[in-house]
Parts: sequence; structure tokens; C-alpha cells
Amino acid sequence: MKTIVVAAALLFSARSLPAESGTPADRILRRELSTSQAYDTLSELTDRIGPRLSGSAGAAAAVEWALRTFKSWSIDVHAEPVTVPHWVRGAEFATLPSHHDQKIVLTALGGSVATPRQGITAEVIEVHDFDQLVALGAENVRGKIVFYSAAMDMDLVRSGNAFKAYRDAVVYRSKGPSRAAELGAVASINRSVASASLRTPHTGGLKYDPKQPKIPGAAVAAEDAELLHRLLASGDTVTMHLVVTPQTLPDVVSANVVAEIRGDTRPDEVVLIGAHLDSWDLGTGAIDDGSGVANVMETMHLIKELGLTPHRTIRAVLYMNEENGGAGGKAYAERHKAELSKPVAAIESDSGAAAPTGFRTTVPAVALRALKQGLLPLASLGAADLTPTTDAGSDIAPLTETGVPGFGMAPDSRHYFDYHHTAADTLDKVDPKELAQESAAMAVLAWTLSEQPGYLPRIPTKREP
Amino acid sequence: MKTIVVAAALLFSARSLPAESGTPADRILRRELSTSQAYDTLSELTDRIGPRLSGSAGAAAAVEWALRTFKSWSIDVHAEPVTVPHWVRGAEFATLPSHHDQKIVLTALGGSVATPRQGITAEVIEVHDFDQLVALGAENVRGKIVFYSAAMDMDLVRSGNAFKAYRDAVVYRSKGPSRAAELGAVASINRSVASASLRTPHTGGLKYDPKQPKIPGAAVAAEDAELLHRLLASGDTVTMHLVVTPQTLPDVVSANVVAEIRGDTRPDEVVLIGAHLDSWDLGTGAIDDGSGVANVMETMHLIKELGLTPHRTIRAVLYMNEENGGAGGKAYAERHKAELSKPVAAIESDSGAAAPTGFRTTVPAVALRALKQGLLPLASLGAADLTPTTDAGSDIAPLTETGVPGFGMAPDSRHYFDYHHTAADTLDKVDPKELAQESAAMAVLAWTLSEQPGYLPRIPTKREP
Repeated sequence: MKTIVVAAALLFSARSLPAESGTPADRILRRELSTSQAYDTLSELTDRIGPRLSGSAGAAAAVEWALRTFKSWSIDVHAEPVTVPHWVRGAEFATLPSHHDQKIVLTALGGSVATPRQGITAEVIEVHDFDQLVALGAENVRGKIVFYSAAMDMDLVRSGNAFKAYRDAVVYRSKGPSRAAELGAVASINRSVASASLRTPHTGGLKYDPKQPKIPGAAVAAEDAELLHRLLASGDTVTMHLVVTPQTLPDVVSANVVAEIRGDTRPDEVVLIGAHLDSWDLGTGAIDDGSGVANVMETMHLIKELGLTPHRTIRAVLYMNEENGGAGGKAYAERHKAELSKPVAAIESDSGAAAPTGFRTTVPAVALRALKQGLLPLASLGAADLTPTTDAGSDIAPLTETGVPGFGMAPDSRHYFDYHHTAADTLDKVDPKELAQESAAMAVLAWTLSEQPGYLPRIPTKREP
Repeated sequence: MKTIVVAAALLFSARSLPAESGTPADRILRRELSTSQAYDTLSELTDRIGPRLSGSAGAAAAVEWALRTFKSWSIDVHAEPVTVPHWVRGAEFATLPSHHDQKIVLTALGGSVATPRQGITAEVIEVHDFDQLVALGAENVRGKIVFYSAAMDMDLVRSGNAFKAYRDAVVYRSKGPSRAAELGAVASINRSVASASLRTPHTGGLKYDPKQPKIPGAAVAAEDAELLHRLLASGDTVTMHLVVTPQTLPDVVSANVVAEIRGDTRPDEVVLIGAHLDSWDLGTGAIDDGSGVANVMETMHLIKELGLTPHRTIRAVLYMNEENGGAGGKAYAERHKAELSKPVAAIESDSGAAAPTGFRTTVPAVALRALKQGLLPLASLGAADLTPTTDAGSDIAPLTETGVPGFGMAPDSRHYFDYHHTAADTLDKVDPKELAQESAAMAVLAWTLSEQPGYLPRIPTKREP
């Protein structure tokens, strides 16, 4: 219903402007904001293919679809092989034998090992952070299930700093299992890194420390985290029966999809635009990162449709395996290492589908004056901000670490973690108009970078650990 | 966190008033609004027992807990046996073989029969209502899975008429399976009757027409309903693989819990206050109907604690099996049929835990003048409204149908169907302050009815079908 209304509004606003006047940026903006093309692309990916975790049939179908779609737009495209892990979710459930066998809603973390088939039954101990864990010591942790109860800081989320709140909380998901294993825990559970919940667990990757035994890791829904906290805070002994049966199958050869529109005067200089084609398995990856894929594909589609020929080459990379390994980003950098001086910039979109505010960039503000001028047409969308970052996106990190100037799409983040890594990451969470604004912003930035006479400074960045 | 802040505020406001002054209604209000006793009662039920579908161990534990709790308050209590169905949820999942085996999130409807263990695979056809189903005819329905796509009317929900929106949509859940079976369908799925969703299916009872074959019924999450609609609207043929394996086990003898505080001058005249102790199995039944149970128990607790002795008897009934059969309401009326002239009123709370606006009542407005006077203390909470209804609550319907004046708690309904019948119906959805307001409202109404010199007119009601 929302879709229909918005599409009608877009068509109406398109009518009031002449078709071919203005600068390329004006034409890009006008065209994109008058269509729901990016949304149509996103629908194809999410509705007809759906989940596409690395190694899955869905991921393979997505690669084929992306190749086919670029070809249908007469854009040069090829696949570049990437070897990816193949982790497959199994059964996952938990109960509290100490409390009438109440069900606990949870989901295994990506990469987690399995419990024995019959499960683990152990006492649950709660820690708010790693300091508390260390203070407990091995004598209190051995044989237990460690429960990390830290929640996202909702004041940060509401004030537009959701990614900061995410980084603060996600360490317990990524590093919690090995830190707990170090002290002898038998499993690790963390409160879902979530800004909303209807008993909704949020998955995501864990990172095992190779020096520690691998123990199962799972994220409980916010409601279940609060229940465990209440029971433990009241002094109850809480025991959990936990069953997760994921499997790590042999690696699979998958692919990055690489498309390009060749520049006429500086074809060897590349403006790279990227997003990741894989998604977690619970939802259909509409906001993570179907919307980024739609932004990238639509940027290429627009430039082609409008008959624009850039000075530099604009290259689209749809990365495989951002979610559970980052193999695509690394494989691209490795394969193209001889030409790592050629990208004049890399733009990534992997922060959701909401209305854009601009871009995060690794380029110092003093060097952005000319670019800001080029982005002025985006000011009408409120999407012209350039804010400093050391992390423009994880797939382009291997490039920005060598000094490639990096840009990351910065949409309104307030609701991103309502859906991120959940079954609820589905097409209906995307507003076609906001997705069009994102796509227009990426296209205008890519175009401006391709036409800019000078170069941005190359300053190698180091992502926060 | 919310809990702590609210409790502190309540304690603070309590200090500013003297302890024992004012009318009983004033004392009830002051006392209840200064504690979080009702919330504590609700926590015990939902956190320590949890789900309690009829026939389950949780339901049995809830009966024992209620008996024990009333006794601990020195309130006379006993159990009255009720024979209930014992339906147990099994596996439940679905995929779309026609669309890369995408997962469809759904939950079996209460009472549903199972598919064969290996599932059903059939084409899905969408209908918006029964007229469309009938128009399709048996030749188009036979062998198919019928998908009822009607959504709740969100304009009604937002304007405070969520129960009207619920009644309009829920017919496809309750009657959809048999209507589809009549035309030869092999299964029936309905869009969850929901006002919010994070891929959240809403269960609820279905009613098989004994004249039709029983086919499985399940509710899909709103997101999945929209996906199915988009695929079908685009002209795709959609096939679904559906597995639901619930079982109907032999009936179980459970109980209504009946407690009373005897009146001093008119002990044979009863003001009945009721709620249902059972819940669906997915969540912990905090708003449906743990909050009603807390209202009823807290009303008794308050009157006892304040040392108030009513003129009439105030009787609490915690009904069993409201959710999937209504056996408790029927058993109570049957067991007490010799005294059906004795209840001067019956009050039910089964509409959630949000701030009360007043009560729905079967009593004509012209006969409510004296009662309205008694409820004036509730005006300060915005909880003094009395609005006409033919349905004051399903457990007391066997009483109101014989002419017992009926009252139903009427809280703000705007978010009730966000959680109703889902795994997300958990304690954190309840605001302790709003629950205290509800409990105070019930206690003031019960007290006023017990003390009122006259009688309300007895007008038998008939619930809407």
C-alpha cells in the first residue's frame, strides 16, 4: 500500500520538470527521484531469491541474477571467483529447566559450532561486560553458560548514533564466546544487538580466537535477555538447556560480480561503487545489504540509461561474503593489487535503506572543498553531508587501508538495528522513495568523482578493531 | 529499567498522602497507585511459570500458584474442576519451492490438525474475503492452499477501535479453514491478525465446522503475507511446502480458581471479578491475560489488606481455557446455575495491560447514574468511562447471557494487537503504573458494586457471532 502511494507521488513530481535539461547531476537526480527502479531491482533480489548467505543456493542464484541483470542493461559485467565459507544453520532452541522449562528465543551466531545433538544443560551466569567476566574468574565460569546482558545504548540510537551503539554492544557477540571459553564456559549467549524487538533474535558473526576452545554462541531476544536478568537478579539459580546444531560444510567457490562503464578520457582511473550481495539467512537481506546492491546497480543503470559517458571508469562491485568472512572484499583487493593505485575513490553502501544524510569519508575535510561543490544538488535531499570516518565500509576497507579515498553511504540510522540481521529484514521495511534518494546520492557522488579534474589525497586508514 | 523508574515515582507520590483517610474508593486508589504489587504478581506468573496453554504443565503450575498465592493472603480459595482440551504445538515451517525455497514464517492455529509428517506441497491462491473464495468456486480451490490476505484496518486501530479491527479480520483465522475445506482446499493460511510485526506470526483458535473435512490452518507473519501477495499479484505461480505437526492429546482435568471475600450484610449477592489463567503457548501471556489475572488478584489483595469488608460477596474467578475452548466460563456457569440470579454483576479483564479508559458494560446508560457517581474517583485516571457493549468478555458471557450485568475492562487498545497471541506477549510489554491503574479501576468498580444499595437491571445479552 505504501509502495503504491509513494510510486504515484514520484510519478507526479516527475511531470513538472523537463526531461533533458540541466547538468548530469541534475538529470541523475530528476530521473531517479521520478522512478521506483531501484526498488524494483531490490524486489527482484529479495522477493524472488530471498536469503543468500555465502555458500547457499540463494547466494549462487543472486550472482547469476546480478550478471543477467547487468547484461540486460547492456553493461559489461563479469564474475570474479571468491572462495567462501559454507555455514548452515540447524535446529536452535533453548529452555529453562529451572523455571518450568520456559522457552528462550535465540538464534545461533554465524560460524558457531554446534552443541551435542542432545544439547547442553548448564547454569547461566550473567555478566554485563568483560571486566565482570574476568573478575568472576575461571572458578566461577567453568562449566557455565556465560550470558552477556549489555543492551544497545538507546540514547545513542535515538540521537542518530546507532552505529556507535552497535559497535559498543557487538563486541560481546563477536568476541564473547572465546572470552568465555578462555575461562572454561561451555557456551556463550548475548543479548541481541537490537533497537526493537518482538521476541526477535539478531544473528551475526562471531570471531573465534584460535587459541581458545570453540564453544557455541547464540543471541537471545531482548525479551529473553530481560527475563534472564530478572530471574538472576532476584537470586534464582537459572539453568538452561541449549541446542544449536549448525554445520560448517566445505568451502564453496562463489563470486564477486564486477560491472563497469568505461571512462572516455581517463579509463584507467576507477571510481569503485560497492555493496554486498550476500545476506544473513534469517531474513531476505533487504536493508542489509539488498538496498546497497540496489544503489550500486541503479547507479550503473541510470548512467547507462541517461547516455552519460564518464571521464573515469565507474566500476560496480557486488561483493560476496561480507557477513561471515569478508572474503569478497579481500579477494577483490588481492586480485586487483597491481592496480591499487588506480581507484581514485571507493564508495560503499552498507548501512541500510533509509533516507540518506550524506556520506562518511576517510578524506580529510580540508581536501573536500571541490567535491562538496559537486554534491550541492544533493542538499535538496538533505544528503550532502560529508562526515569524517576511519571506516567507510568493510568491503572497501582493504582498499582504503592502502590509501584509496573511501566514502560510505550514511542513511538515517535510527531504525536500522530494529531489523538488522533478523528475519524481519524484508522488503516491506524499505521506503521506495528513500531508496531512490540513496541511489541518486550514490550516482551523483560517483559521477562527481569521475568528472573531478584533480585527485583526493591518498591517506591509508586503519579501521577500528 | 522502565520498571525501576516507575516504581520510584510511585513510592514518592504515595508519601504525600496520609495513610487511612478518605472513602474506601479513595483508599483503594491511593494504596494501589503507590505500589507495584499487581506487577509483582504478574511477574511471578509470567517469569516463573511462563506459557500456560490449557492441559500443559504450565497451566497446572499456574492453578497451584494461584491457590497458593490467595492462601498466602489469607483469602478463601478453592479449585473447581474443568475438563479442557490438550492441544500441543509441533514443528511448523513452510517454504516456497517455486521461489528458491524461501522460508515463510508461520505458526499453526490452535486446534489445527497436522499435515502429513512430510508436509503438503500445493499451489497457493489468494483471496481477500469469503466472497472472493466463493466466486472462485471448487474448481479453482480444490487441491490448493487458500491464503486469506486481509489485514487489520490500521485506521481503526490508530483511532482506538482495535477490537473492531480485530473482529473484522479474525473471521479468516477462525472460520477460514472450514470455508476453504468446503471447496476442497488442502490447507488454509491467513495473514496474522496484527498491528505490528517483526516477522511475528499471531496464533489463535480456529473453529472447525463439523460438516467439513478438517484441514490444517496456520497464520503467516505480515511480512510473509505481503510477500505472497506481491508474488501472486505479479502473476507468478506460487507453490508452498507446508509442515505443521500439532497433536490433540486426550482431554485433561484442570480447574478454575475461585476465591472470595464474603459480604457482611448481603453475602449471597455476588460481585464476580474474572480473568483467564490460561494463555497461548508462544509467549508468556503477560497482556493476554496475565494482566487481567493480576487485576483480579490485586483487587482481592487490596480489599483484604485495607481491612475492608464489603456488603456483598466479592468473588474472584480465574478461568481456565479461555483461549481454546472457553471450557472454564461454561463450567463455572453450569456449576453455579442454581445461583445464577445471585451475581449482581460480573466484571472481566481480558483486553490487555494498558492504561484503563473505563469499562464496557451491558447495562443501559439510563441505569448507570448511581454507579457513575461511585466511579468518580477514577476520573482522575481517565478511567471512569462506561461505554455500551453486548460483549463484556467471553468468560462471563454465559452469565451476561442470562442477564447478569456485565462489565469489561477497557484499556487503551492501540498496541494490544502488536503482541496479542505472539511470542512477544511478555512482561516487558507491561507498564507497572498502567497495570496499577487497571487494578485500581477494577477494585473501585467491584467495591462500588458491592456497596451500592440498589440493583442494576438484568437484561440478557447475546454476543455477536
